[in-house]
Amino acid sequence: MGSITTSKSDSTTERVTDSYSTRLLARQNLITNTSGLAPGSLQANLLILPSRYAQDFHSLCLRNSVPCPLLGIIPPGNPHIVSPAPCIQHPDFDVRTDFPQYRVYRGGKQIASTKDLTELYTEDHVGFLLGCSFSFEDALCEAGLTPRHQTTGRVVAMYRTKVPLMPAGVFSEACMVVSMRPYKPTDVERVREVTRPYGATHGEPVAWGWDGAERLGIRDIEVPDWGEAQVFEEGEVPVFWACGVTPQLAVEMAGEKIEGLVFAHEPGNMLVTDWTAGDLEALKEKSGFALPM
Amino acid sequence: MGSITTSKSDSTTERVTDSYSTRLLARQNLITNTSGLAPGSLQANLLILPSRYAQDFHSLCLRNSVPCPLLGIIPPGNPHIVSPAPCIQHPDFDVRTDFPQYRVYRGGKQIASTKDLTELYTEDHVGFLLGCSFSFEDALCEAGLTPRHQTTGRVVAMYRTKVPLMPAGVFSEACMVVSMRPYKPTDVERVREVTRPYGATHGEPVAWGWDGAERLGIRDIEVPDWGEAQVFEEGEVPVFWACGVTPQLAVEMAGEKIEGLVFAHEPGNMLVTDWTAGDLEALKEKSGFALPM
Repeated sequence: MGSITTSKSDSTTERVTDSYSTRLLARQNLITNTSGLAPGSLQANLLILPSRYAQDFHSLCLRNSVPCPLLGIIPPGNPHIVSPAPCIQHPDFDVRTDFPQYRVYRGGKQIASTKDLTELYTEDHVGFLLGCSFSFEDALCEAGLTPRHQTTGRVVAMYRTKVPLMPAGVFSEACMVVSMRPYKPTDVERVREVTRPYGATHGEPVAWGWDGAERLGIRDIEVPDWGEAQVFEEGEVPVFWACGVTPQLAVEMAGEKIEGLVFAHEPGNMLVTDWTAGDLEALKEKSGFALPM
Repeated sequence: MGSITTSKSDSTTERVTDSYSTRLLARQNLITNTSGLAPGSLQANLLILPSRYAQDFHSLCLRNSVPCPLLGIIPPGNPHIVSPAPCIQHPDFDVRTDFPQYRVYRGGKQIASTKDLTELYTEDHVGFLLGCSFSFEDALCEAGLTPRHQTTGRVVAMYRTKVPLMPAGVFSEACMVVSMRPYKPTDVERVREVTRPYGATHGEPVAWGWDGAERLGIRDIEVPDWGEAQVFEEGEVPVFWACGVTPQLAVEMAGEKIEGLVFAHEPGNMLVTDWTAGDLEALKEKSGFALPM
């Protein structure tokens, strides 16, 4: 790692080493779920498309930054770099292997699941890394608001909503997907506050309470569209966050409008990046769009 | 203007002079509608709030960039500057007077309309300039797709939708407002293409067709919530764009949660800025989030 980390503080070096090791484990197919690995490191969702759809997908992210928070782009012809933001700092990186598991789509339908994209990825493919809610879950745990699915060992519940995404090119009929965690009504404001700063990884909830569920068009909280139903304790209400499954649903809903192979991460099998939430905050300030006061 | 424009090209100088003159006319209360003035100059919507709500409103814009496209911020204590992006280049600027007409809100209700905020604006107020659809209407006209309300001399039709905004702090129950222009179904793809590049001023439509109207929750196209009903020619369908009235509705829906006076522009009475669409494009590239290919 030499030249890359010598100018960094020891803690940054440790962090990058830790996230890099985790990526190597993924590359060697030795892990199948990244939840809880390399604590503090941001994890990323993935979508890879043929280049002719890259502009549309890029616009979809910018127009729907809460469900599709863009972290970085892997330009065509080089699966080893992330541009423009260096959320991967170690030079040994390969988007085709460093996620534990990938989904393969054609015509909007998943046709395969694989641990390695090397044979399928072409010079024409463009990759997009997107923020993941694992990041703000660490913060909830630290605040004593541990998400229920972590204490029960279930997969978080995810629902398709009727909230339309802002259309972008071929992605014109997609809807937002949300994840749900039960909380007491008296904890909702605190839950909002704790997750609000994580603006690049879905941020604060998009709806809460039973009226919130209705507004999203969720009919039966016991029947999630992905993941597992959650255990509600007495008096608890659902709290919903935008979910990184949204881009995959957008690809499914674009269907035959997309020609060629599309790849995504298998849910739960994320990329462990070299960034923390602090790096994102610094990026926001650098972009000149932090609140100047 | 001296030092500000000597390094600019002649066309930029002319443009800035033209937009500055228009602002001076507004300051002197000599105009009441900015539609069609200073062609090519971006026009801006306005929202001014007490500083304690500035962070929440800023987040609302970043989380809902299509209906609330942030152009610049007027920091507390100085109504003469726009930060960080220089969409006002002439040093003689006053956000309290350079819009033709303002609305005054208290507790979510409009309580007055005024041509001058000098007496009401305090050192604690923070201003937000937001993109306006007048910008992409120029482009539609140039493409031979002149919006109907321009040829009929009506005010554009605006509707409250049931699409929830992504909540941000006190702004937790707002909905998107849309403007509507009728087009032939065969023109919709072209209309989308022409307005797509105007990403910082609402960009491409958010819905179209009668099924699009239904998805937005618009029950009667003949009864807009603001503006005037539009004339449909045979076979035409409605095309909807996100609308700059959205932030005002967000303030109304926050109601008593906001203490103190809030100000907004009176619809149709915008700020004529010194920017063109090209300046916005350059800003996007500078921020490092243009598509790197």
